[in-house]
This record gives sequence, structure tokens and C-alpha cells, in this order.
Amino acid sequence: MIQFPKPTVEQFFRTYAITDFAVSKDEQRLIFSSNLNGKMNLWAMDLPDTFPYLFAHQNESCSFIQIDPENRYVLAGFDKDGDENHQIYAVPYEGGLPQPLITGDPADKFYFAHLSEDGKRVYYMTSEGNPSFLNARVRNIADKTDTLLNEGEGYPTELAAVSEDEKAFVYLRSSANTYVTGVVKLGEETYSLTPDLEKVHVVFDPVFVDDQTIYFITDYESEYSYIAKFDLKLKEFSAVVTIENESIETVKFNKELAVLYLTSEKGVSDRLYRYDLTSERLEALTLPVDVIGKIHVAASGAVYLLGISGTKPVNIYHSKTGEAWEQLTNNNVLGLNNKDMVEPDVVSYPSFDGMEIEALLFKARPENDNGHTIFWAHGGPQAAERKTFRAMFQCFLNRGYTIFAPNFRGSTGYGSSFVKLVEQDWGEGPRLDCVAGIEWLFDNKITDREKLFLVGGSYGGYMALLLHGRHAEYFKAVVDIFGPSDLFTFVNSVPPHWKPIMERWIGDPERDKERFIKDSPVTYLDGMTKPMLVIQGAKDPRVVKEESDQIVAKLEEEGRDVEYYVMEDEGHGFSKKENEIKVYSMMLDFMEKHQ
Amino acid sequence: MIQFPKPTVEQFFRTYAITDFAVSKDEQRLIFSSNLNGKMNLWAMDLPDTFPYLFAHQNESCSFIQIDPENRYVLAGFDKDGDENHQIYAVPYEGGLPQPLITGDPADKFYFAHLSEDGKRVYYMTSEGNPSFLNARVRNIADKTDTLLNEGEGYPTELAAVSEDEKAFVYLRSSANTYVTGVVKLGEETYSLTPDLEKVHVVFDPVFVDDQTIYFITDYESEYSYIAKFDLKLKEFSAVVTIENESIETVKFNKELAVLYLTSEKGVSDRLYRYDLTSERLEALTLPVDVIGKIHVAASGAVYLLGISGTKPVNIYHSKTGEAWEQLTNNNVLGLNNKDMVEPDVVSYPSFDGMEIEALLFKARPENDNGHTIFWAHGGPQAAERKTFRAMFQCFLNRGYTIFAPNFRGSTGYGSSFVKLVEQDWGEGPRLDCVAGIEWLFDNKITDREKLFLVGGSYGGYMALLLHGRHAEYFKAVVDIFGPSDLFTFVNSVPPHWKPIMERWIGDPERDKERFIKDSPVTYLDGMTKPMLVIQGAKDPRVVKEESDQIVAKLEEEGRDVEYYVMEDEGHGFSKKENEIKVYSMMLDFMEKHQ
Repeated sequence: MIQFPKPTVEQFFRTYAITDFAVSKDEQRLIFSSNLNGKMNLWAMDLPDTFPYLFAHQNESCSFIQIDPENRYVLAGFDKDGDENHQIYAVPYEGGLPQPLITGDPADKFYFAHLSEDGKRVYYMTSEGNPSFLNARVRNIADKTDTLLNEGEGYPTELAAVSEDEKAFVYLRSSANTYVTGVVKLGEETYSLTPDLEKVHVVFDPVFVDDQTIYFITDYESEYSYIAKFDLKLKEFSAVVTIENESIETVKFNKELAVLYLTSEKGVSDRLYRYDLTSERLEALTLPVDVIGKIHVAASGAVYLLGISGTKPVNIYHSKTGEAWEQLTNNNVLGLNNKDMVEPDVVSYPSFDGMEIEALLFKARPENDNGHTIFWAHGGPQAAERKTFRAMFQCFLNRGYTIFAPNFRGSTGYGSSFVKLVEQDWGEGPRLDCVAGIEWLFDNKITDREKLFLVGGSYGGYMALLLHGRHAEYFKAVVDIFGPSDLFTFVNSVPPHWKPIMERWIGDPERDKERFIKDSPVTYLDGMTKPMLVIQGAKDPRVVKEESDQIVAKLEEEGRDVEYYVMEDEGHGFSKKENEIKVYSMMLDFMEKHQ
Repeated sequence: MIQFPKPTVEQFFRTYAITDFAVSKDEQRLIFSSNLNGKMNLWAMDLPDTFPYLFAHQNESCSFIQIDPENRYVLAGFDKDGDENHQIYAVPYEGGLPQPLITGDPADKFYFAHLSEDGKRVYYMTSEGNPSFLNARVRNIADKTDTLLNEGEGYPTELAAVSEDEKAFVYLRSSANTYVTGVVKLGEETYSLTPDLEKVHVVFDPVFVDDQTIYFITDYESEYSYIAKFDLKLKEFSAVVTIENESIETVKFNKELAVLYLTSEKGVSDRLYRYDLTSERLEALTLPVDVIGKIHVAASGAVYLLGISGTKPVNIYHSKTGEAWEQLTNNNVLGLNNKDMVEPDVVSYPSFDGMEIEALLFKARPENDNGHTIFWAHGGPQAAERKTFRAMFQCFLNRGYTIFAPNFRGSTGYGSSFVKLVEQDWGEGPRLDCVAGIEWLFDNKITDREKLFLVGGSYGGYMALLLHGRHAEYFKAVVDIFGPSDLFTFVNSVPPHWKPIMERWIGDPERDKERFIKDSPVTYLDGMTKPMLVIQGAKDPRVVKEESDQIVAKLEEEGRDVEYYVMEDEGHGFSKKENEIKVYSMMLDFMEKHQ
């Protein structure tokens, strides 16, 4: 009856983020972090009522939420304008304005680690006095005494688990994203969780099942990560749960029911399992989403889940033991529902060396199709493009762009060997996977040779710069969102506690000088002949503004067509809705101009 | 365990407005207008789920919401930055961005009047071509034909009801707030709803119970308004429901159950009744709030209510027939609950001529009390200070101020004669009621003679200016929020369709020149010796910016202590949260400075 126009960019971006949540022990309050009102704040719902109310007003990103088991206060971590220097704040249980609890110099980090069973002692990590390796400390909330627990040495250290009697502590030490070892400290003694610390493997998500038994995830001597156990009495390591071709990613322990809840990663989507410690039975559970952001298992056995799908924004779900999933939040795209979105096809293609590369292919609907394709390079690089709703993708699809997002070598979800292939090889293998993907698009008539755009963020921004420099002939125009432009400067500009892992990840600028030159986008400045749009957050601590400044300056010197937009109040991402809408509108305009 | 500081100004203002709502015929969707995300937009909940989602993004105040009975679209009225030139937009039933439907020149108004039973014809009022008296038109949505139905003449006219067969139309004609007559037009014939159009009375909220019978509210020959009936066949007027000492304010008809839902006003709070047309029985219903903003009665008999209390912000409630009220929204003060708020005492005092004046007295708690009182003059003036949550009041109370808000003569809720007492007497009777209230505060030791502030908005701003000019000795400092400063200029600056009612309300600037001089604050410039803070919205169409500009300029010329703050993007009120917080923080700082 009334003709309504097509959805606008703005409409697609009128979803919000939900980045974390916590549930009170009595399951009567659920607190979540969201930019529902435009900026990141904490909201709560008093279950079973789901109408949310503002719980803590801070207008900053939240790194964790921890509710006191006796409902006296709530702890939360906030940084400043995305600088990732998170510090620990307290909020009254009734809600209010966050008050500094464990904080210090704005340049220091205070990471929450653990809250004692009685809610009286906060275990945390801090860069204060040990910026590269971090110290573990414990704060007694009532008397404000604060004790050093462990001094990080040699590697960035994380206190990852505390036994209920607070006598045993599990520390993780990172040599790289793919090399993280775990040790347990009991008094003066330290034991390795895995048999050989020298072998390259990862350990994460340790949980004390009792004061003597630690369950954790590892890929020790395995292609896929699995659940292992360390018996502190016998000092014995053993594998417990392995799932074929799936990497277990998180483990939650429910003491009352003696079960573990496991989530696993299989390529572009996740799985959920329940493992009964008594019967040793593993049961696959249904999931309301493609990808899990977080799960929480209550004492009652109820499961709370933050998750996202290819065509549906992030929401929080709830399932009483054995019951169907119920959606608690209602995060939608303004005026559109799932069926208006494009579900990606999962495709794969052989790369230059025959290796199989999986990719997500979002095909523009025929009625929208503008004949152009966007090649999207994901960030990480040790991450993956998965079935997660991206307003950007769905908006661009609606405008007629087809989108292709390959999980080039180095991506997670395809086993331990695959993820390591990007290490000390940032610019060769993954780049050739991208090139093979582009040729596959052409060969399969998905994309016209004259109608390809290139877009990427973070490592994907680096890849966009590099592909542009070395293969400009493929692209009409290129968008780089906070991508490193020069490995020599990048390797020195990361936060101090990242530096120890740079060696395995990227290499050494002296020893690997030749490769650094070969793999730095700036080396190929002459090749960057296509129009570019560069986006950067001024406060970005991961890829600092100078990375974009320098490449833009050099391109401008050469008289190239380059647009540069700096977001003054953002870090490595978009925490503010208006910035997000502005940047994606700019990208759409930029691509339209260069079609 | 953790000591949290006292609530801040910001915390008190982290509530939001809910200004209107509508429920779909099938009761599966409730749409409401709120600044939940910082600016005014439409939100929806898909009942019984109450988690709200953004339904229409416009960032402007909404004047009405009307859902198509067949769920094809939603109509809503929006203005621009509070200019009150509302125009009619359509939104897809799935939500989205509002599209202009019945709109025109930005300076014109298009008021929604009625939607036909089949959802195909929109009846509306417009200033287009008839700015003083308004025209009624009907738009056929499908074929876009638009027909003139009635040309307003002599008085601002409102199409207030349309019979189901769309043959009979009720028009209201306003000569003043207290003189509004109703006529029904059937073909070429026009009949008065009340026996004598010449008697001063009001008619409002007409409903067609069938094509021949109109129920409406009137105070015809009565001190309190009641329900009357007009029989279109017999051309007969009769009184139907009268409630002793209460003014009936709204009537909603439920056809399926043949009942009327009535709300009434009794001094500072409201009542709700159900009237059975068959048994003629009137039943008082419980209420979850002190004051009702809107009620909606669904075909099922379920009642939806927007309401507010002295200590609780506005929320939407729901009651299935005969069942207890259930709160659907969860609008709270950040981190505070009702028991942290001050419930006002309802007091009364005799004025200069012995007339009893009712007032709300909010006493600062002893632990907060700073010894100072704020005298608050309400706007209207034909309105009242009632038991409605004001973040400003509760915040000021928390800072230790006691607040006194009298319903001086001219206020509503105390009968028809009382409300007329301000007419053509803006500056005398009501002012002396205020003076008597101040003396009563002193006499009763509630307030120290040296510790009184004066604050008011709109007519209350006018009263603040006038009291300051004539009784400066009472006050430490004065805050005027968009108050008229000169009746000569004010009477000519209001919107065209207000002008016909100015005569009865204020008077004629030529004939009543002496009184205009006597009652204009600007006359008493010499007396305005105390520090002042003046707040004004640049887009205010009711009290234009010049009203504040001129008094500020004159005070500055005299070297008086005056602060002036203009909100560039506001009209006669605060639609934007950040403006509201800024202004009330300024007021607090101003009072603190002048304590």
C-alpha cells in the first residue's frame, strides 16, 4: 500500500554490540556490556524480566564483568577511548557509576584474573613495574592490602586459574599465539601442565575441578586442541576429551553436576558439548547460533550464551538444563530480519601449492547485484573469517556487492599446523592464497576481472596494502583499515608485553632483514597505483597511527589518489556507533566513485 | 565492603523519557517513543517478550504513533529539533527509517486525527493554507488523493472524532484553554454537542460508541468535567458519568465489551475507572502509578498504561482484564531505587484572599539537608505540579535542597473556576499565591528567610522573573527557563493558531495596556537585583528566544549578574539527554555559588 525505499547504510548499522555478560549466582540478574545507547556501557536485566536497564554508565569498552557471589558489588574493566589499558572498577550491586578499585597510571594495565569464592580477594595481572612480562597480585578488598604473587619473567605471563583453597595457581606464558605453556605453582614448587615445555604447543582455559585436579585445553602433540588433565598429587598429565577434526576452544566446569561444557571450533562455525566427568560421556548440544562468543554455566545447570550467526547480530540466549534455547536480548537490524540477509556459502579452492583454502562467499542477490566483488582480507592473522554477522558485509551486499573472504594460511579453525604457516611468513604464503582466491573467483565467473575491490582491516589492512603494491592489476580501488605498512616500524610499535611474542610471529628485524623488506607493503609503493582509502584510529595501541601516517604521506608525495580518515576517539576498532556509520558510509561512497 | 560515593547529577538524569506508545490490534507488538538511546526514537517489543528493539530511527520527538489495524505500516508524527511543526511519516511494520507521508513546508503542521477502520484513509489537520484556524483533510493512502473536509473558521479547529462509517465528524473549536466547544458535522448539517455554545465550557475526547452516539468529556454547567452523551438521531445532550470532586480527563471505548475506561484528575494524582455501558456501573480500578500519561484499551479488554509516580520515572504497564498490573518497561534512575527518592507531602495553605492553595513539599532528608529551599513555579499556567517523577527535583533533593511547588490559582485539578482565575490575570492572583506560599514556608519554619532560591520554567519562568522583579528580597538567586519576559511581545510571538486563544487567556495588548504593563516582568527590571541564570531553547516556538534575549540584554546593560545559556538544538523542553544534564548541572553550580 505504501512503497518504502531500500534500506540505507544507517539502517544496517543500527545494531549494537554485546561484548560480554555475567550472571549473578542466584541467576536473578544478568549484566551485559553493550553500546545499546550509542556508547559502551553496562546494562542489566532482572530475570525473568528481560527489559534492560542502564546498570553502569562509563561510555567505554568493558574488558570483563564479575559479579560478587554475595551480590555486594560488581567488578568491571574499562579502558579509555579504546587504548586497551584496562583497569578494574567496582559498581554497587544496585548499579551506578563505576568507581576505580584497582587502577594506576593511565598507561598501565590491570587485568582481572580471579575472584575468591567469598568475593573478598581479587587476583589480577598488572603491567605496573613489569610492562613486558606482567606481575600477578592479589588485593584484599576490605583492608585494601595488596600482595605480589608472581613476577612475570621471560614471557608475558597470565594468572589463568586459582584453586578454591587459593593455594595453587596456574600461569600461562606466551612465546607466541601458537606457543603458550602452562605451569602450576603450589607453594614454592612449579610443575608444567604438559610433559615437555620445549615442544611448541598451547595451553589455555585451565579450570580447577578440585584443589588437586586441573582440566585445561591444549594441542600438545596434536593437530587439534583437546581437553587434558593434570593431577597435582601424582604430577600426571593425561588427555581426556578429543573431538575429531575440531579444536576445543573453551571449557566451563559445573561443580554441582560434575560436568564440563565445551565449545569447539570447526572451520567457520562452533559446536557445543557437555561432558559428564562421572560417566565420561560426551554429548553434543544444539546451538542457536553459528559462533559462540561466551558461555556461562550456572550452578543450576542452566547455560547462558552470547553468540552470533552469519545473518543475525549478536544476542544472549538461555537454556535451562535440557530445555530449548530462549533468546533473552533482541538485537536486530533496524527494519530487517534474517531472511533479508545473505547467508554465506562455504567454498574451498586449491592454492598455489595445492593446499585447500576455505572461504566464505556472500553472493549479492540478483535483484541487488551491481556486478562488483569485494575481496575481504580478515585480521589476526591468527584468527578467521567465520559465520558472524557483519553489518558492513550485509549492507554492502544489499548495495549489490558480492563479498569473498578466504581463510588463508595462518587462519584458525583448521588445525595447529595451518595456523603456524603465517609465522615468519606474513607476506608470502597468505598473499599467494589470496591471489589464488582471486583467480578462482575469475575462473568460476563469480567476479569480472574489471570489477574487484580490495578491503581489509588490521592484518587484513596490511594484506590489502601488500596485495595492492604487488598485484594492483587486480583491483579497481583499495581500502586499508588500520593495517601495518612497514614491518620494521610495526614490530617496534606494539605494546611492551607483545614484544616477546613478535620473534616467533614476525621474526627479528636484524636477522630477517631481507624478509622484512620483502614482506613490508611500503617496499611496493611504486605498485600502489589504484585509488586508496585509509582509515585509522588515533588511539590504536595495536597498529599505531604512524603505520597509516607514513604510507599515506609517501603516497601523497608520489601524487597518488589517497583519502585518509583518522578517528580521533577510537582505538583498534569501532566502539562508537557514529564513527562506525561514518566510516562505512565513506567506504561505500569511495567504492561507488571508483566503480 | 567497598565504599561507594553519593549519587551524582549525571546518575539522576540517566533515566529516559517515554512519551507515547501504541499497541497493535493483535497485541503482539508494542511500539513506544523514547530517548532510551540518547535521542528520541521509536522502539518496539514483540510481546510477551519485553526486550526492546529500535523500531524507527529519526532522532526527533514523536507526536503520535498509530499502527495500521492490518499491520502493514505504522504512522508517526515528527517535528524538527522541537519546533513542534509535526508532520506525518510512515514506517514499515517491520520497522525502518520513517518516510514522509503527509508532509509539506517545514513551517507547516500536519496533525494526525484519525485512521479509518480499514487503515486506508488518514484524517488529519493542517496549517497549510490556514495557519490560524487549520483545515481538516483526508488522504487516501493507496491512490494518494487528498480531500479537503473542513475549513477552520474563527477558531483553531481540531477534527477530534470520526464515526465508523466515516459520515459524521466531531470538531472542537478553541477560544481558550477553558473554552472549547464541540460540534458534530453530518453531511451539510452541524450540531452542537452541548446545549449552549455561548456558555464558557470545554468539550474534549469525543468517541463514537456507534454511528449515532458520541460520548465526550465536558464541564458544561459543572465545576468538574464529566462524561456526557450526544444522540445524533434525537439531537439530544445528556450527562452520563459524574465523579464527585474529580475531573474526568480521558475516555477510551471498548466496543467488544461495551465499556468505557475513564481517567480522572484529583489534585496532584489520577484515578482510573471502568464504566459498563450496559449495566451503567462505575468501578474504580487500582493504579500502579500516581499520574497517567496515556491508556490504551485493547479489544481483548487488556489495558496498557503509560504512567509516572512522584518517586518513579515513567514506565509502561499492562493489565489483562481483572489481573494485576505488570510493568513492561524498566525505566529506573541509574543505581537508585524508589526508596532513595523523596515522596512529596501534599500540603495546603491559605492565600492572601483566604483561598486554599495546594502544594507539593519535597523535604530534603536530614542527612542530605543543606538548609536551602527551592521555590518552584510550574508552567502552563493551566496545568499543575503533580506527583510526577522529576529527575531535577530528586537530584536537587539529594544535594540537600528542599523543594516547594504550589498549585497557584490557574492550576488544573481543582475545578473549572479555579483554572480560569489566571485568565487575564497572569501577574496578580497567582503571584500573590506564590508570595503567600513563601510566607507560609517561613512561618512554618520549613525555610530560612535567607535561604530561598526561585526556579521556574515557561509560565513558571515568567513567574520567576515577575517575583524577582517585585519581591527580590525573598530570594538569593533566580533561575528562569524559557519564561516570557514581556506580555506585549509574547502575545504576538506565539504560533498563529495560538493567537485566537490569546484574548481570553492573556487579554488584548491595546485594550489591556495598563494590565499588560503591570503584569510584564520587564516592567520591574529595576527590582531584579539578584543573580540570575536564564536558559532558552533556540528553536522554542512557544516562548521564542527573543523573550529571553531581551531581558538578558537589559539586565546586562544595567550591569546585573546574569548568566545566559541558549540550547541551539532544543525547543520548549529538553529532547536531548546531554542538554538536560548540562542545564541541570549548570543550575546546581549556579545555586551552589550563590548559597
